Amino acid sequence: MKLTVSLKDKSYDIHVGRGLLGSVGEIFRLDRRVLVVTDEGVPAAYAEAVTRAAAAPTLVRVSAGEGSKSLATLELLLSTMLREGFTRTDAVVAVGGGVVGDLAGFAAATYMRGIDFYNVPTTLLAQVDSSVGGKTAINLDGVKNSVGAFHQPRAVLIDPEVLATLPRRHISAGLAEAIKMAATSDAALFERMERESLSDILDDIIVGSLEIKRAVVEADERESSLRRVLNFGHTLGHGYESAAALSGLLHGECVALGMLPLSSEEVRGRLVPLLKKAGLPITADLPTDEILTPVYHDKKASGDKIRYIYVPRIGAFEERISPISEFCNFVKKEMSR
Amino acid sequence: MKLTVSLKDKSYDIHVGRGLLGSVGEIFRLDRRVLVVTDEGVPAAYAEAVTRAAAAPTLVRVSAGEGSKSLATLELLLSTMLREGFTRTDAVVAVGGGVVGDLAGFAAATYMRGIDFYNVPTTLLAQVDSSVGGKTAINLDGVKNSVGAFHQPRAVLIDPEVLATLPRRHISAGLAEAIKMAATSDAALFERMERESLSDILDDIIVGSLEIKRAVVEADERESSLRRVLNFGHTLGHGYESAAALSGLLHGECVALGMLPLSSEEVRGRLVPLLKKAGLPITADLPTDEILTPVYHDKKASGDKIRYIYVPRIGAFEERISPISEFCNFVKKEMSR
Repeated sequence: MKLTVSLKDKSYDIHVGRGLLGSVGEIFRLDRRVLVVTDEGVPAAYAEAVTRAAAAPTLVRVSAGEGSKSLATLELLLSTMLREGFTRTDAVVAVGGGVVGDLAGFAAATYMRGIDFYNVPTTLLAQVDSSVGGKTAINLDGVKNSVGAFHQPRAVLIDPEVLATLPRRHISAGLAEAIKMAATSDAALFERMERESLSDILDDIIVGSLEIKRAVVEADERESSLRRVLNFGHTLGHGYESAAALSGLLHGECVALGMLPLSSEEVRGRLVPLLKKAGLPITADLPTDEILTPVYHDKKASGDKIRYIYVPRIGAFEERISPISEFCNFVKKEMSR
Repeated sequence: MKLTVSLKDKSYDIHVGRGLLGSVGEIFRLDRRVLVVTDEGVPAAYAEAVTRAAAAPTLVRVSAGEGSKSLATLELLLSTMLREGFTRTDAVVAVGGGVVGDLAGFAAATYMRGIDFYNVPTTLLAQVDSSVGGKTAINLDGVKNSVGAFHQPRAVLIDPEVLATLPRRHISAGLAEAIKMAATSDAALFERMERESLSDILDDIIVGSLEIKRAVVEADERESSLRRVLNFGHTLGHGYESAAALSGLLHGECVALGMLPLSSEEVRGRLVPLLKKAGLPITADLPTDEILTPVYHDKKASGDKIRYIYVPRIGAFEERISPISEFCNFVKKEMSR
């Protein structure tokens, strides 16, 4: 099946289907120079399906993990394209999770002031969330996504079969983003996830999440307002991520934890069992202050107020703005329940 | 006076006037963190006029010259903003020539996926040409402008008084771009430049050139077609620049030389005296092959054909497409006249 993200001259299709990777050459325009970027954690066969279909492929395999979202790795990709004589009409294809997509997308955004970019997300998190929306970035000086660009892909290919090789824990992390989207925007999808086996309806969860993400991106391409609904769970999730470099929580796990204090009692009553069912944590052994410190530090820079998404009932959300100290007290109260 | 570049949600004003730099705080929104980027070749007073007007300025002075359009200098600017706690709502101001504008503009394009950018061009070349159009870039591996972004400024401030400190030869180099634009697109401006003292009508030359550039950018923001008219003189000019790293010709001087072989006899008959009057070279002591080699090398990558702008009569142009070998023969014939 195919979903179209309508952004005028930047519109593009998301192709979803089992086995689609085998016909990538019919879905992406690969009759040219193509830089295929993947990482060492992704089974080699996935990137090879793309190089096989391309007229003039160049494969770059970066190290797995956030460390590859660096200026040095970006330079490696750009230099490789220069050496291979890439022009403004050539293309970049990412085959991997969010790290590979963010990095390769930013290289495509900046090479010759922007060339075509295609994405083959191979993690559930990237399939339901990060591969759609045009956000690309690297990290600098320890600040995540501090350097980047909005650069929409020409097309996205989502083949749920590639998830067969994804570790169970990463499936759970991806489900966290899907649960996040259903909680704020799609009560029916949330109920289905409560009722049925998550692995049985995985393809529908992917499509349902993409429908939500698409609608949000179409309404707010550059994240000025509405798109902030996607931040549900991320305001505090970011706190968990920063605090817990040690504890080794995945992004999706932090999002799961970050949703709970910003949900009503009723919502929490349904979130907790669903998160458990998805294999996600519902508590972390971290002092509340340690989670709030990075949030507080971040927000100081942009004034004293914080915006966050609160979910009063499943399928709805409110954007709240409050002084940072009030927010911290509110979270502390909720977390001590 | 004020010219508006109309690009929908990216529209902006170019403010032109003697002494305007003194009221920069009324023209740009500087009530926030502002990174002011200038270079060692620009009189310090110009950047100081901006820092004085800003609520929270940070000044970075890079080395003068093309070498500053590097990934290393870009990193310096981005790291400086991170260290100073710049958010998505802060801004960058360039105060200098094309190098500073391209570099600072690219930093603004990529910091937090794009923040506000303002430009105060202080060379004639930047005032009539490079400060308008949204092209930002750095060089990588010796390839000019190979990494960059389209990022429109929020506003441009052009104060012709700052040209008082610009070396005569750089005034000439800027006039080359103005002559280029008049030759293809404004016969009346070209005639005025022939007839009157160039220094007397400098402000009008700036405004006239900006009118042409604005119309072209409005019609073709991302340089897909019409904008190629601006490449008149640049196809061969690039050859001169690459060949003549030794000879030390300025960009504008190379453009002057590059226009002549791609003009009709009639046009050349008027271009030569005007270029001379503007203090520009009309011949360079370089073998034709040395000029054509970089052009040939560049074009090989994008197929066998070359697109170039030819001027049959003043105020008009044709885009021609021909096989690279035919183009080279044509240029050789024209240059041996």
